[in-house]
Amino acid sequence: MKKTFVLSALAVLISAPVMAKTWVLTDAESGTDKGNWQISSQELKASGDAFSIEQKVLHGGRQEGSKVITIRSKSGLTIALSPTRGMNLLKVEGFGSRMGWDSPVKEVVNPAFINLESRNGLGWLEGFNEMMVRCGYEWTGHPVRADGQLYTLHGKAGNTPVSRVEVEVADAAPYEIRVRGLIKESTFKKADLQTLTELRYVPGSNSFSLHDVLTNHADYPHDYQIIYHSNFGTPILEDGARFLAPMAGVSPFNDYAKGGLKAWQTYAGPTKDFDEMVFNIQPLSDSNHQTLAAVVNKAGDKGASIAFNTEQLPVLTMWKNTDTLKQGYVTGIEPGTSYAYPVTIERQQKRVKQLQPGASTQFDLTYTLLHDHAQVAEVEKKIAAIQGDKKIDVSDTPIAKE
Amino acid sequence: MKKTFVLSALAVLISAPVMAKTWVLTDAESGTDKGNWQISSQELKASGDAFSIEQKVLHGGRQEGSKVITIRSKSGLTIALSPTRGMNLLKVEGFGSRMGWDSPVKEVVNPAFINLESRNGLGWLEGFNEMMVRCGYEWTGHPVRADGQLYTLHGKAGNTPVSRVEVEVADAAPYEIRVRGLIKESTFKKADLQTLTELRYVPGSNSFSLHDVLTNHADYPHDYQIIYHSNFGTPILEDGARFLAPMAGVSPFNDYAKGGLKAWQTYAGPTKDFDEMVFNIQPLSDSNHQTLAAVVNKAGDKGASIAFNTEQLPVLTMWKNTDTLKQGYVTGIEPGTSYAYPVTIERQQKRVKQLQPGASTQFDLTYTLLHDHAQVAEVEKKIAAIQGDKKIDVSDTPIAKE
Amino acid sequence: MKKTFVLSALAVLISAPVMAKTWVLTDAESGTDKGNWQISSQELKASGDAFSIEQKVLHGGRQEGSKVITIRSKSGLTIALSPTRGMNLLKVEGFGSRMGWDSPVKEVVNPAFINLESRNGLGWLEGFNEMMVRCGYEWTGHPVRADGQLYTLHGKAGNTPVSRVEVEVADAAPYEIRVRGLIKESTFKKADLQTLTELRYVPGSNSFSLHDVLTNHADYPHDYQIIYHSNFGTPILEDGARFLAPMAGVSPFNDYAKGGLKAWQTYAGPTKDFDEMVFNIQPLSDSNHQTLAAVVNKAGDKGASIAFNTEQLPVLTMWKNTDTLKQGYVTGIEPGTSYAYPVTIERQQKRVKQLQPGASTQFDLTYTLLHDHAQVAEVEKKIAAIQGDKKIDVSDTPIAKE
Repeated sequence: MKKTFVLSALAVLISAPVMAKTWVLTDAESGTDKGNWQISSQELKASGDAFSIEQKVLHGGRQEGSKVITIRSKSGLTIALSPTRGMNLLKVEGFGSRMGWDSPVKEVVNPAFINLESRNGLGWLEGFNEMMVRCGYEWTGHPVRADGQLYTLHGKAGNTPVSRVEVEVADAAPYEIRVRGLIKESTFKKADLQTLTELRYVPGSNSFSLHDVLTNHADYPHDYQIIYHSNFGTPILEDGARFLAPMAGVSPFNDYAKGGLKAWQTYAGPTKDFDEMVFNIQPLSDSNHQTLAAVVNKAGDKGASIAFNTEQLPVLTMWKNTDTLKQGYVTGIEPGTSYAYPVTIERQQKRVKQLQPGASTQFDLTYTLLHDHAQVAEVEKKIAAIQGDKKIDVSDTPIAKE
Repeated sequence: MKKTFVLSALAVLISAPVMAKTWVLTDAESGTDKGNWQISSQELKASGDAFSIEQKVLHGGRQEGSKVITIRSKSGLTIALSPTRGMNLLKVEGFGSRMGWDSPVKEVVNPAFINLESRNGLGWLEGFNEMMVRCGYEWTGHPVRADGQLYTLHGKAGNTPVSRVEVEVADAAPYEIRVRGLIKESTFKKADLQTLTELRYVPGSNSFSLHDVLTNHADYPHDYQIIYHSNFGTPILEDGARFLAPMAGVSPFNDYAKGGLKAWQTYAGPTKDFDEMVFNIQPLSDSNHQTLAAVVNKAGDKGASIAFNTEQLPVLTMWKNTDTLKQGYVTGIEPGTSYAYPVTIERQQKRVKQLQPGASTQFDLTYTLLHDHAQVAEVEKKIAAIQGDKKIDVSDTPIAKE
Repeated sequence: MKKTFVLSALAVLISAPVMAKTWVLTDAESGTDKGNWQISSQELKASGDAFSIEQKVLHGGRQEGSKVITIRSKSGLTIALSPTRGMNLLKVEGFGSRMGWDSPVKEVVNPAFINLESRNGLGWLEGFNEMMVRCGYEWTGHPVRADGQLYTLHGKAGNTPVSRVEVEVADAAPYEIRVRGLIKESTFKKADLQTLTELRYVPGSNSFSLHDVLTNHADYPHDYQIIYHSNFGTPILEDGARFLAPMAGVSPFNDYAKGGLKAWQTYAGPTKDFDEMVFNIQPLSDSNHQTLAAVVNKAGDKGASIAFNTEQLPVLTMWKNTDTLKQGYVTGIEPGTSYAYPVTIERQQKRVKQLQPGASTQFDLTYTLLHDHAQVAEVEKKIAAIQGDKKIDVSDTPIAKE
């Protein structure tokens, strides 16, 4: 008895940060493919909030063969993400609320059925319905023909089936779950950008985080761009919902958005003919370069916040698409290295970053589903603290013209 | 005994129009996928002409993963259609004849392997071999670059895997079979046109019908176009075969077709260097807007007719592709809302229709495989009756220039 | 006993050239798909060098669903080829060496995930990692917009899943293995070029051969082009490795290659910023039109040679891509009907060939993995014999300008 106790204690001591069970669901190198797969806290004899993790292969329509991994936590969040679509987050539900929205695109479209070059580079819209899409990394932004090619809307990562998928569950409370996926943007002569994405979630909690490491595996420096295109609809978004972020300045993306500058931080309800307005924000951050942005409902008891690092993601786009429900009533909170302008403009304005050969860069974001007054108030307080008494430079002149 | 009889009689009475067994073969929403599947009249204890309905997943070449549903009726028709290709009809055989043709494309090409934008918008030709393709609904016609995008040949519906497939068999004689498939053309910001296609067939009969309901699920009006591109080769098409339809007028599609206007209603045998001629027809219809068009063989004992409604499908294209057998010896009878001109011309000439938000429109067509003199004669009689003594305006001037 | 002997002897006599077991792994016509499959010399009770033949369906990333056939010979070669990618040869290993190279593209990319038109017609590079890719047959060469369409890099055959795959093993020693695959380039109105590829390998040997028969199934003559793009990296390619071939002349592909003309037949080690140089060679051949080209290492004890027929493949391209290891350190030896210029230039310069209706043409190539001094010396001797005292016309002027 003694001996067992000692050994267990030792095990905990040694392994606390690393001891975990790992399941490889997909691996291109070894040809692994678990297909439909499931694990539960019960099977793992894990205490605390009951959870399960499931992978399912979808069928029907243009989602034939798409995979979805769903993390279900009994009193916490249900998080769905798709290995077939660059580990994009489909939707996050819990606490009587959700992060995500309702696109007219209902299926988890397999990239095999998408031609990103169609519709003059807007083919991406044929699969867009996620709560979060990685827009990058080889390029991002609005489509443009340049360098003799078509840079399609928001790049290819979000439409790339990942090469390796791992699920990891910590061996000890609070049984943190990690889901990793490797996105390869590898093209002979062109790019070898590989992104190891990681989602971390502690069962029962109302937040999760992303930790993505982008590495340039080539022997030459390579440009990269990324926008974490994070999208929220009802029940958070509503008439009177507000957008919150500490900022040095804001300006409309184009002339149409200029018309909405006055009330840009407040949302309208579903509005026929609203279409979309986009605002370019220069976020402020604290001394550790941490900042956060949020959308909260009118009553201030529901919301979603994204914490991020402005050294990693220096700019912030707010996308206001408060058109009708059926058109996709949604707002985007989009921390990035770039605004949504075409890569040509982003290059001119020096926002396109570069990775040296073998170098890596990391992106850490924490998403929180706010579900009461206190949580919303706390976010407001944090934002106010970062803002301090710094004046917001509101410019009505777009910084670029497409 | 008495009681049983009464109950059965009652059952028939109550259920006749609605009682049926339904099998969901594919459903994107619930993730259903039956894969290889089969049902037969024997299993269903259905009297009358023996039938079976089978779904098969194909393999090899560019048809990897394509699904085909085949309805086989012992003394009637064998009808093959593909859920992977927008419920297009592959071929219909029976009574010693067939509707369909022999394309150099032999496989049921999975749209995953087709780039509609390739060959300057003619990628559609890499999969074209069907007896009937739905050319629409977002757009149709010859490719054109307009509005900054490439409108590819004949739209996308025919290359869209359907989101839901249902097979229904009536519970009572004559055990009508219905196969439904849902084509979604849903793209964020662009379109949410959904077409619930339905094919109805009574085992033993020599005809089947289509009943497609197109609905605009968006909150804005949306243009639509549709051509039911129906194609017939041997044994109906041959030297001396004839095209029949009641019409107000006809004109050649372009200058090349002008050269064939004189004998346009009669077909040549397989002819080297014939290529194709297209004729634009203004169909006449009866007081219920019903009309029909047909192709019949020289002897007048084989043929195929299509009955349709000119309020739903006001124009008719005849495509004469009597080139050699290996090139695809075939004629198209194509009721539609549009001719085959690019959408830009169809817009100018006001043939592009529009659906209001939430509105639906229906297309009903009946295809009949004519297999004796009497049947052909009856079609000729019906057509003559609709034509009456109305003169046909034969114009040698194409109504548009591509 | 006697009887048995006589019968066996007779059987050998009659069947020697044709008696073999055949397995159909894939057949579009009948819907056959063996998926994961394996056979071994043990099961076949075949004497001589032990061998196995395996088909495996791959998973993960953009190789989801790709098939690979691997021939393994105990003391000979391991040859991997992909039915999903036009029977391209992935790699060939044995005798402590290999034919093949290391591309930044690691997966056997399913063409469903490649858009050949992307990157202005360079989408082909997103899947390029093979030891040998068939670049053809409808067209080949660098991309060009002409005839209103985009001719994409190196054509489509190498990104076409084959329609039929057969494995054949001879019934008697030396148990020759044949793997056949049918590539269909069939598009309504455009082309019906079908290539029945065949690879032949005798277990234990250090060479294998290809015997491809291209047939024009259309009723009209059709142009064709083919380059057997064969690629070699380490351990054969190294600083001081040499390229060998008998030739009438050589010239640089473009101005950049001009700079490397002086030492064009010797290779540098992995060299930053080298990028690529291409040289156009007019090969010489013997009286039977046989010739060979090779790359050999510095020590002259490792190499790879390709024997081919200059009536079938009259021109030879040498591609020198001695950039860094991670970029893909590789040289291409590319017998073809064409150089790598766009089809427009190849047409002007009369290298585009044509097949009459129903006509076939054959391509026979033998690849040998040279693994000692004697083998390398023999190749050198053969090449010297074909060269004889014919002078090589070294021109520093590219024959065309892209």
